[in-house]
Amino acid sequence: MGAELARLLGAHPRVEIAAVTGRSQAGKRLAEVFPHLWSLDLPIEASLDADVDVVLSALPHAAAAEALHPFIEAGTPVIDCSADFRLHEPEDYERWYGDHPTPQLLPDAVYGLPELHRDAIRESKLVAVPGCYPTAAILALAPLAAAGWLDGGAIVDAKSGVSGAGRSLKLTSHFSEVGENLSAYGLDGHRHQPEMVQELSALAGGDGDGPAVTFVPHLIPMVRGMLATCYPSIPAGALPSSRDAAIAALRGQYDAFYDAHPFVQVADSPPSTKQTLGSNACLLYPGVDAVTGQVTVLSALDNLGKGAAGGAVQCLNLMFGLDERAGLSAVGVYP
Amino acid sequence: MGAELARLLGAHPRVEIAAVTGRSQAGKRLAEVFPHLWSLDLPIEASLDADVDVVLSALPHAAAAEALHPFIEAGTPVIDCSADFRLHEPEDYERWYGDHPTPQLLPDAVYGLPELHRDAIRESKLVAVPGCYPTAAILALAPLAAAGWLDGGAIVDAKSGVSGAGRSLKLTSHFSEVGENLSAYGLDGHRHQPEMVQELSALAGGDGDGPAVTFVPHLIPMVRGMLATCYPSIPAGALPSSRDAAIAALRGQYDAFYDAHPFVQVADSPPSTKQTLGSNACLLYPGVDAVTGQVTVLSALDNLGKGAAGGAVQCLNLMFGLDERAGLSAVGVYP
Amino acid sequence: MGAELARLLGAHPRVEIAAVTGRSQAGKRLAEVFPHLWSLDLPIEASLDADVDVVLSALPHAAAAEALHPFIEAGTPVIDCSADFRLHEPEDYERWYGDHPTPQLLPDAVYGLPELHRDAIRESKLVAVPGCYPTAAILALAPLAAAGWLDGGAIVDAKSGVSGAGRSLKLTSHFSEVGENLSAYGLDGHRHQPEMVQELSALAGGDGDGPAVTFVPHLIPMVRGMLATCYPSIPAGALPSSRDAAIAALRGQYDAFYDAHPFVQVADSPPSTKQTLGSNACLLYPGVDAVTGQVTVLSALDNLGKGAAGGAVQCLNLMFGLDERAGLSAVGVYP
Amino acid sequence: MGAELARLLGAHPRVEIAAVTGRSQAGKRLAEVFPHLWSLDLPIEASLDADVDVVLSALPHAAAAEALHPFIEAGTPVIDCSADFRLHEPEDYERWYGDHPTPQLLPDAVYGLPELHRDAIRESKLVAVPGCYPTAAILALAPLAAAGWLDGGAIVDAKSGVSGAGRSLKLTSHFSEVGENLSAYGLDGHRHQPEMVQELSALAGGDGDGPAVTFVPHLIPMVRGMLATCYPSIPAGALPSSRDAAIAALRGQYDAFYDAHPFVQVADSPPSTKQTLGSNACLLYPGVDAVTGQVTVLSALDNLGKGAAGGAVQCLNLMFGLDERAGLSAVGVYP
Repeated sequence: MGAELARLLGAHPRVEIAAVTGRSQAGKRLAEVFPHLWSLDLPIEASLDADVDVVLSALPHAAAAEALHPFIEAGTPVIDCSADFRLHEPEDYERWYGDHPTPQLLPDAVYGLPELHRDAIRESKLVAVPGCYPTAAILALAPLAAAGWLDGGAIVDAKSGVSGAGRSLKLTSHFSEVGENLSAYGLDGHRHQPEMVQELSALAGGDGDGPAVTFVPHLIPMVRGMLATCYPSIPAGALPSSRDAAIAALRGQYDAFYDAHPFVQVADSPPSTKQTLGSNACLLYPGVDAVTGQVTVLSALDNLGKGAAGGAVQCLNLMFGLDERAGLSAVGVYP
Repeated sequence: MGAELARLLGAHPRVEIAAVTGRSQAGKRLAEVFPHLWSLDLPIEASLDADVDVVLSALPHAAAAEALHPFIEAGTPVIDCSADFRLHEPEDYERWYGDHPTPQLLPDAVYGLPELHRDAIRESKLVAVPGCYPTAAILALAPLAAAGWLDGGAIVDAKSGVSGAGRSLKLTSHFSEVGENLSAYGLDGHRHQPEMVQELSALAGGDGDGPAVTFVPHLIPMVRGMLATCYPSIPAGALPSSRDAAIAALRGQYDAFYDAHPFVQVADSPPSTKQTLGSNACLLYPGVDAVTGQVTVLSALDNLGKGAAGGAVQCLNLMFGLDERAGLSAVGVYP
Repeated sequence: MGAELARLLGAHPRVEIAAVTGRSQAGKRLAEVFPHLWSLDLPIEASLDADVDVVLSALPHAAAAEALHPFIEAGTPVIDCSADFRLHEPEDYERWYGDHPTPQLLPDAVYGLPELHRDAIRESKLVAVPGCYPTAAILALAPLAAAGWLDGGAIVDAKSGVSGAGRSLKLTSHFSEVGENLSAYGLDGHRHQPEMVQELSALAGGDGDGPAVTFVPHLIPMVRGMLATCYPSIPAGALPSSRDAAIAALRGQYDAFYDAHPFVQVADSPPSTKQTLGSNACLLYPGVDAVTGQVTVLSALDNLGKGAAGGAVQCLNLMFGLDERAGLSAVGVYP
Repeated sequence: MGAELARLLGAHPRVEIAAVTGRSQAGKRLAEVFPHLWSLDLPIEASLDADVDVVLSALPHAAAAEALHPFIEAGTPVIDCSADFRLHEPEDYERWYGDHPTPQLLPDAVYGLPELHRDAIRESKLVAVPGCYPTAAILALAPLAAAGWLDGGAIVDAKSGVSGAGRSLKLTSHFSEVGENLSAYGLDGHRHQPEMVQELSALAGGDGDGPAVTFVPHLIPMVRGMLATCYPSIPAGALPSSRDAAIAALRGQYDAFYDAHPFVQVADSPPSTKQTLGSNACLLYPGVDAVTGQVTVLSALDNLGKGAAGGAVQCLNLMFGLDERAGLSAVGVYP
């Protein structure tokens, strides 16, 4: 995610990268570790000494909160891509991640999904960029939650490219294990699920436990890309009984909900993930099953783009009063 | 599918391939068209003149029924891999495939899923091998249907390698379109759905319309392999309320249901498709969501193996009184 | 290639796309056929009626020369991505492509490789963008040819992603055939070979038949990316006898040759193709075999980028006096 | 490689697996670590205590020689898949691998390539299975060496799937790094090169340093499969001057050389690697460049099959007087 941030910020018309830090590769040049960034002539430093306007962190959870603490204390705006400031309730964090280094900061943080919290992000100095799965799922289900149609919960069958697992070495990211292969994982629970409930619950009115979200992630033999196929339980009577009318009502709700949001497209045909590769787009496609009437919502994005580094840059633009689209105009690299 | 039949039958200890037919490639040697079959020195003939004990067809629907008609009339045992003899009701066939060339033969056909119809297949001279999606989904849900737990229906989120689409050229099988990409399709209905309902309905008792099955197929950037992630709506109270007890009850039901069936394994960990590559195995994994209690069942197989040619050979073995496993002992080619 | 041109030109700061034409898809919107281009709201027209400053063509050979003829006659600058204006000698064209529709125009055309012909491209109104294989191979071998070190010829073992074969449907671009597979092709000769000889011969002084270039292309199971591994026969004594000194001499020659060319990087480590994905970079790596002393030169690029649409945009920039890098600043989308 | 040995031996009609050992996974069941081997109900033991007729080792170099020493001393036949007994000269081993634990055993070992050393393997109790790259390259060039046509040396441009690098975790086997990517490696020398020279030199008569072999390996984004594209320098006059006659002379030499060897096929068309997936086949295709007359030889195999575990089983068959093809009759799993 750090490399993708460097790629996007290096081409951003209003951003200058003051410094790059790294843990295992400190002392090398950035382009030595990531040769595709050959045009960014920057050293990787062990810690951040530069005087900066904003800090973006792609550190893992816990390490992020610790490293960011002094900057937050000093009033420097911070955009964190870890899980450390996403969950409002410390006990939720503890359950999935362990002790929080700085739980007292949680009330100051804003969940960095501009389509839900644009104004709050504009005013915030501590923005927590969502995980890739929550970005895809929440954008897919938010219009339903806002309409009061999500009380029955939803199943989120999500499929991700392998890059979502990062650059650390593990057997489940090993080419020979993953290539020409397909599996589900996280069947005993996945850390990204409570983010979905937190955000959808707030949209739905927020009483009780929030909508029941069954989240099953799958690992797909591709590098980038994420598709969430969402199956909400829509209350009987909420939608017209004819399929065509139900589809029209759904699309109307989605079009209205995302009308002012430039990166979410309600697509005319079922999207494919590669249409978003390298871009900040999220493509949504609500539909109704022809046989059973089950509502389905497809959500496609680049897990390193809108699902991570792109989303972070979008927050940065808002925090600094820039055009929300600055540095994010690239369309998908297809095929 | 024809090439995979040749691969399996060429190595079958009790089968001799008498003749191979083909439409577009007639006149060539089999190994010229499929060089991996170099050890099978057979010409591709335009029509079948040999005196044979059984005919296996991998023709498309309609063409299969037409070409097989004389053999069926003559009393030659027939194993058909098309959709022509899978659906019992002519109107179901018409809706999805058009006019049936020989509807009068439908009552004679047996649905070729040995785990449901082993005895009937043994006695039959006209066996209809299921589609790959129905094989994965029905094997996943059959124990639930048989237990009376499927009345609430199920969502089948299925993922398939591209080889399931066959060798004919289309943009959706084009490498540059499918590679490093992921999408859902068939959102206006898919031909394989009625097979699932037909078979699960019979298991469940068979009154009414059968369980509502929402089926959403996805195209995965890999050649072989299929994973169906199934989300049944289990009636409240059918399973124990504690998660561990519910899992134990589910596994007990699955173990008992497939106890006598050598190719279905109730796996100890979530299966991946490549564990089955080139084999006739189907790996099932029933589970219960840790947060919501939703039951999930994973079903992994090789779409050209158990989901097509392997299933056909298994039927052949039964029809001729051979060991059900003859010629099918290969385990997955992994990694 | 047409879609990639649209992607690059749609984001070019000095270009406005006046019109898009297409043959099979005329009448649709561009974003309907290529959803990743959703931000380009343009119809696909059957023919070009707009008043334009320049025409870029991604038509196949022969069709390109025919369609471009009226524009060339009218004095409109033309950039052609087909083979129609690449070869200077009509008989070379005839041998590989058949009759040329407008052979009288060949003397007016400039071979659109800016690293060899930058000044001529600036003055030209008819630029022929090279094929992807020649771009990779010529850039790899040009410094050797210019130094007089290529008289012994070279072997070019080239590897290409499947997108180089375009969007037309054929078995050799079928996912199930190409996925998890690898093969050589064109063993009876490939159309791109004479371009290499033409350009390298001119650099080498141009007498006789030019250097003997054995060119063997391979199809790699990936969508984008090209690597040419080149094995020149360097005359004895041309390089120092110690390996380190020979490498230093080689790198000195490459650094000097490409010093003024922003898109060719002489890399510090062996490049990989994905470092260039979506960009206009060509990464070169000259080396000397540790055992035999054989010189090897690696050349990596994006076959749709620098090897096609990116190279075309670079030519456009030169023809119109723009910064050569305008619209081409994107670095590789990695991983 | 160990898992592939288990897959092949588990299905071998004349072999019973007495015991399986492992280092990091000792104490687990084999099927727990490799679920595709579900039908092999065997524990993984830390050391080998069983009374066995033969030991096959897939340990890394040095570890193999140490672990095998007591068995060799005790007279148990040993088949080693590491590099420890491949090179005849201790100094060659030291240069590439370091100190040899048991150099005194080197004279007893036979290089386990049956197409070159079938009789010696039959008599041997210590067989060193070749590396995957040498298997592909030596089989491609052996007929030329035997004919005296290889004195000018050869360039071996080899392409391998990622599984050749084994199951240990490293960035160069990480899915996100390797997927949709392509690169050359080993440019400062590769351990497999001296095996090629040793064997080809012996075939060529054996004086001097042997043929100069420039070996450049490449990493391909696929799991299994290897293609070596070989460019020998054939002495002028060795082959007829007309291309057709030269091809005929080459094919005649290859057909004769491999006439008695069941797993090497001289193919009628350029082979692709997937034609050999899961099998013990090696497909060769000698050709002559249409423009330059350069001889090219393609060699395709499964790097885990004929290039490793399949080759080991072939040696086992010979050592025990079995049919050379026992347990190796599977053809490629294609597509």
